[in-house]
Amino acid sequence: MPDQIPALARLAAEAGINATANQIVVISATLGQQDLARAIAGACYDLGARYVEVNYSDPYVRKVRLTRAPEAALGTIPAWTRRKLLDLEEAGGANIALTGPAAPHLLDDVDPGRIGRDQVAIPEALEVVGRQRVRWTVIPGPSEGWAQLVFGDHEPDALDRLWEAIGTICRLDADDPIEAWRERADELGQMAQRLDDAQLDSLHFTGPGTDLTVGLLNGARWEGGGMTSVDGIRYLPNIPTEEVFTTPDPERTHGVVTSTKPLLVSGRAISGLRMGFEGGRAVQVDADDGAELMRELVARDEHANRLGEVALVDSSGRIGRTGLVFHDTLFDENAASHIAVGGGFPHLAADERVAARVNTSGIHTDFMIGGPELTVTGTTRDGRELPVLMHQNWAL
Amino acid sequence: MPDQIPALARLAAEAGINATANQIVVISATLGQQDLARAIAGACYDLGARYVEVNYSDPYVRKVRLTRAPEAALGTIPAWTRRKLLDLEEAGGANIALTGPAAPHLLDDVDPGRIGRDQVAIPEALEVVGRQRVRWTVIPGPSEGWAQLVFGDHEPDALDRLWEAIGTICRLDADDPIEAWRERADELGQMAQRLDDAQLDSLHFTGPGTDLTVGLLNGARWEGGGMTSVDGIRYLPNIPTEEVFTTPDPERTHGVVTSTKPLLVSGRAISGLRMGFEGGRAVQVDADDGAELMRELVARDEHANRLGEVALVDSSGRIGRTGLVFHDTLFDENAASHIAVGGGFPHLAADERVAARVNTSGIHTDFMIGGPELTVTGTTRDGRELPVLMHQNWAL
Repeated sequence: MPDQIPALARLAAEAGINATANQIVVISATLGQQDLARAIAGACYDLGARYVEVNYSDPYVRKVRLTRAPEAALGTIPAWTRRKLLDLEEAGGANIALTGPAAPHLLDDVDPGRIGRDQVAIPEALEVVGRQRVRWTVIPGPSEGWAQLVFGDHEPDALDRLWEAIGTICRLDADDPIEAWRERADELGQMAQRLDDAQLDSLHFTGPGTDLTVGLLNGARWEGGGMTSVDGIRYLPNIPTEEVFTTPDPERTHGVVTSTKPLLVSGRAISGLRMGFEGGRAVQVDADDGAELMRELVARDEHANRLGEVALVDSSGRIGRTGLVFHDTLFDENAASHIAVGGGFPHLAADERVAARVNTSGIHTDFMIGGPELTVTGTTRDGRELPVLMHQNWAL
Repeated sequence: MPDQIPALARLAAEAGINATANQIVVISATLGQQDLARAIAGACYDLGARYVEVNYSDPYVRKVRLTRAPEAALGTIPAWTRRKLLDLEEAGGANIALTGPAAPHLLDDVDPGRIGRDQVAIPEALEVVGRQRVRWTVIPGPSEGWAQLVFGDHEPDALDRLWEAIGTICRLDADDPIEAWRERADELGQMAQRLDDAQLDSLHFTGPGTDLTVGLLNGARWEGGGMTSVDGIRYLPNIPTEEVFTTPDPERTHGVVTSTKPLLVSGRAISGLRMGFEGGRAVQVDADDGAELMRELVARDEHANRLGEVALVDSSGRIGRTGLVFHDTLFDENAASHIAVGGGFPHLAADERVAARVNTSGIHTDFMIGGPELTVTGTTRDGRELPVLMHQNWAL
């Protein structure tokens, strides 16, 4: 068993969800991630958990569904899947999700239209996140499949090398990784405060293939470095987390944007994505690969083609320094500034009136627009221009 | 992939649950049974299923719980686990469970008291079974661990040999396995009818270490060879199924009984079990191995020490003929007559008044009492003695 597993398991249980005695914890993993899932279960029980359930998803079962289920069956969510989130919330529970593509090329030959039509967000999920009773975290879950995607099929030590990289990125080499993440979370929280203090009305992104203005929502705050539950317990929704983000005005995005990294949607890559926005809506979607899947997504419901997130990431995290491409949103979105189409974050709204203006949709799909050549400039509510992020360094 | 997988998968979907278009199906499997679980999912989708969920349980996560969870946490069932059964019933769904010890000796060093205290039946489960809206089946799920238990650690072809034996037992070698099971089910149904017609008041079991009288419940019928749902669709709760069973009078069992095969409870073997009954209650529990776990079980609740099932099995099934010991209740209980302590079957009662007399308990644990030397004699309600089963052959 890789050396990093016990430390990452403790980090997930303590810094991630900050598990407390008598708590019910659900761990969502994919087949191939068993060693880490079991270690996290142990770490939670050591903190006094009452019940730890590990749910393994099987990418091959999903492929069977995508290739053999009747067309009308796509998009089905059983009633219990939706209720479970509410039950977990009622029980004061916590959720730990392991990420990472465990079976990377499995869906390469599957009709992207069917993948898109079966890709359904659970409406209760964003609500539960917003109410901040369920403490949750997303952490990397290394697997043989992911390791081969990052290092190649013929690298015999691929999994060890992936664990080593993830150990570095997750700061497991710190004297006290839990304290190291609390410090980083404080820095990100301070950056979010500076963005709030700047009273920005919009952000202007310029870079190769990108000239995009994103209107911000007056009354929605910036967030970074973790969250605090309604009962006052801190938790870290992502490990690693390097981003500062807000929920933008869904009606005031315009211009063009080009993705700087491929994104994986249900195991399928979308690369060279180019989107044109007018009046908040994506009116044009092109890509070198995967355009059809992205078009399916933004057509999913009435507001799926509007922005739900804008996030800024500087270069002080460790992901970029490894020189590796991880093909996973948790890593990519914490290595580069990004935006997401789909549902936004009502919990960032100052009041009900502002919350009602946050975008609502059954999808939430991030894509990366940041890189060394991206410049982010802000315009304040009183009309001043301010540099925000230059060459991945904070300028504010 | 073993040749038997597609045929067993179709058998589970068609003869087992008799899947219909637009149905939701839950498959319960253990890690190590992925190939069969995926094949069954495909077979269900081919029949028009709307959603097939595969839930994998991880024996190692269970061991982590049994060794590291706080004592007070044992016996916890999350709310959603209970509700899920009711949701499945409401959706007109079906359930396929894969059996077989996938990690046979994993719990050998775990405190049996803790295993017993964490072994909790879900109250809703027996209710749902009784209402006969959810069609369900239990089938064997071969795994490397199970194969090694049956054939030894050093047998390189163990898994292939297990699949071959299971192919024979499940009649996959028949021209039409689905039809073969419908015929066998009809035979068992006719035997149940003959037992009903005999109007038996009690059964008397005699054999080595066994001299036991089981009072039967006036107004409870015998069942064998499958069930019919409330909407008139046949299904086979067990494949293989070779038993004819009823729910006995919980107050009229007396004498002594010795198990003829070891039973596995939560992965722990109980062997050489000897139980003494008075007035329907087990008053003495001894065993060569595992007595403490069995004592924990029968002390679980007020009626856990009374009988909930008596089942008769002749020798015309194929399990005994393989000459193998499978260490799994599905096989053992369909190779030998057996009784179970714990909850009985209200659906076998003729009316509400009889149903109220059926034993209720949070446990239901079968153990085998049949073998070549067992004699089963019946006493009719009008006082005649009838031979029922002699040397594993029907005598009625």
